[in-house]
Amino acid sequence: MHIGVIGGGQLAQMMALAGYPLGLKVTCLEPTVACSAGLVTDVIVGEYDDIRQLKQLADQTDVLTYEFENISYETLAQLDRQHQFTPKRLYPTTAALRISQDRLQEKQFFEALQIPTTRYLPIDSLLDLQAAITQIGLPAILKTRRFGYDGKGQQPLTSPEDLSAVWATLENQACLLENKVSFDREISCIGVRNIQGEIRFYALTENQHKSGILHLSRVTAQQDPMTALAQTYVTRILTQLDYVGVLTVEFFEQAGQLIANEIAPRVHNSGHWTIEGADTSQFENHLRAICGLPLGATETRGQVAMLNLVGEIPPLEKMLSIPNIHVHLYGKTPRARRKLGHVTICAASQEMLNQRLTALLKII
Amino acid sequence: MHIGVIGGGQLAQMMALAGYPLGLKVTCLEPTVACSAGLVTDVIVGEYDDIRQLKQLADQTDVLTYEFENISYETLAQLDRQHQFTPKRLYPTTAALRISQDRLQEKQFFEALQIPTTRYLPIDSLLDLQAAITQIGLPAILKTRRFGYDGKGQQPLTSPEDLSAVWATLENQACLLENKVSFDREISCIGVRNIQGEIRFYALTENQHKSGILHLSRVTAQQDPMTALAQTYVTRILTQLDYVGVLTVEFFEQAGQLIANEIAPRVHNSGHWTIEGADTSQFENHLRAICGLPLGATETRGQVAMLNLVGEIPPLEKMLSIPNIHVHLYGKTPRARRKLGHVTICAASQEMLNQRLTALLKII
Repeated sequence: MHIGVIGGGQLAQMMALAGYPLGLKVTCLEPTVACSAGLVTDVIVGEYDDIRQLKQLADQTDVLTYEFENISYETLAQLDRQHQFTPKRLYPTTAALRISQDRLQEKQFFEALQIPTTRYLPIDSLLDLQAAITQIGLPAILKTRRFGYDGKGQQPLTSPEDLSAVWATLENQACLLENKVSFDREISCIGVRNIQGEIRFYALTENQHKSGILHLSRVTAQQDPMTALAQTYVTRILTQLDYVGVLTVEFFEQAGQLIANEIAPRVHNSGHWTIEGADTSQFENHLRAICGLPLGATETRGQVAMLNLVGEIPPLEKMLSIPNIHVHLYGKTPRARRKLGHVTICAASQEMLNQRLTALLKII
Repeated sequence: MHIGVIGGGQLAQMMALAGYPLGLKVTCLEPTVACSAGLVTDVIVGEYDDIRQLKQLADQTDVLTYEFENISYETLAQLDRQHQFTPKRLYPTTAALRISQDRLQEKQFFEALQIPTTRYLPIDSLLDLQAAITQIGLPAILKTRRFGYDGKGQQPLTSPEDLSAVWATLENQACLLENKVSFDREISCIGVRNIQGEIRFYALTENQHKSGILHLSRVTAQQDPMTALAQTYVTRILTQLDYVGVLTVEFFEQAGQLIANEIAPRVHNSGHWTIEGADTSQFENHLRAICGLPLGATETRGQVAMLNLVGEIPPLEKMLSIPNIHVHLYGKTPRARRKLGHVTICAASQEMLNQRLTALLKII
């Protein structure tokens, strides 16, 4: 089968690399051939919302998917409505895209499914913001409803004096004010559902961010006390959306409860460890799911953690001198705050994992 | 770094796939772009012994390697002598190539290193053959000295009446007569040595052939009783050749002794299981070795076996319905006796491995 991926970043690249052994070919749509996926796949050069290029991608391939949610729902929905591609040939469906790309709809969706989430209020003006603060309280976070990622489109609010300055930085976009949750852990739960409705989960990961960008994901034990609750919530989402593909939900854990933060309708940075650390990677399982193939086993292999390489890449020979670490470089030009690669660390015990992680952190 | 691979089959393909995450790019030389590696790498179209194309490959890349030994030693040695590439930029060196592509030199090499091998005599004529039989006895195997693989260029001899007919089928090529060893197991030992001289070994595999083609490789326990002896022999070979890269030696085990059968100066079919079954794959370690990078851990992950897909490919969905199996298709057109892919089977226990293997064998 031939898969069209909207987007040509590292997620599309790792999908393509997972596809080759199965005889699944990826072509991506990206504004430039000089992209991460372009190293390993054909690229249709075009904007993500260029309907002619999207049509070309759909025409050339058997199934369409996307590697990130900040693409035009309207354009895809239009293509879908016009039956430009056969029903069920775009996975995840546009419903998942619509919800996950708008923080307001996402919150309402969580509420409808009785999944706890942060308190929030929609903000369309400075007046809204001033009124909302009195309800939500401080500290709070002001987030644009759309196009946020890696901490972009988010501003913390700690004092009432900040309001107008912060509102100005977000350039009067439609926003959401959320209460700032003090959490014990930040967790993500990655599930996958195929066309036949079969569902699998990976072990939860515990995530640490730096300046809003994922820094470290540690895979928790299969018997993590939050596993059952997280999987219940994610199953509700997968089922409600008749979802096909990999889906990630980020949660805050607070006093034994889970508070849903956001949905990513795609393979996720906190699941990169699955390439070496699980029986089947999230990339392979996403492809299997959208191609209607049986899902692969998701069991964790030993102790695993994943560290992002952001802004710069340490010397390869130094990283590779640490036993059982797996380096993934995305072929991008280094730039501040840019995800350039990741390293997966595997070990038989937590102690050994921590030693390797410490050694790695010394050279990063 | 940019690696030039002479040959564009599945071994080059899997090397290329192992290289991308490390930022190592592969370009291969192959008579046609429609080759397995061509799906994932650039291809310089040319014959393996075309000195201009080899020079072009060397000029474009930082280090040269080869994916099989049936290439022209003379051409490469000529390039090497003319300093067409800097010393030590072709790995494994031409010495390894020269020995492994000529069964007579290979036998003499084993003897020089005091590694037991089969009894043999060089055969250049029917008269030689008739005389040799009286020394070697029957059953025996007549093998061409060069260009043999997957059982090609080999003929069993069981009766004195066969001699002239068999000699004729091998078209009067220079041959070797070997005694047929009755063995308990056929084993391969895969070692890797980098530019710095660091050596690592994978667990031994026990191999079963069908019609001269590898059918099944089972990874033996790390404490296999033959491990120390096999590693001693292979270390001797690696050190004597100042070898760089992955090297495989096939042995017959007979009453607790190892009899060396042949050397493959490259990644090997019996090592394909290392992609999912070892901490670092043979492909990644070959690239690390020839690029002067530290070698990766070679420990086995659980119980592993590898089955070749020869001649035809069973339906993908059927194979993938078996838990924890990993399908690798090479993108080749099916043809009798052609290796089209392989399947690696992983499990926590031997019992589970056998169940999965049985399920797989039912659909192949």
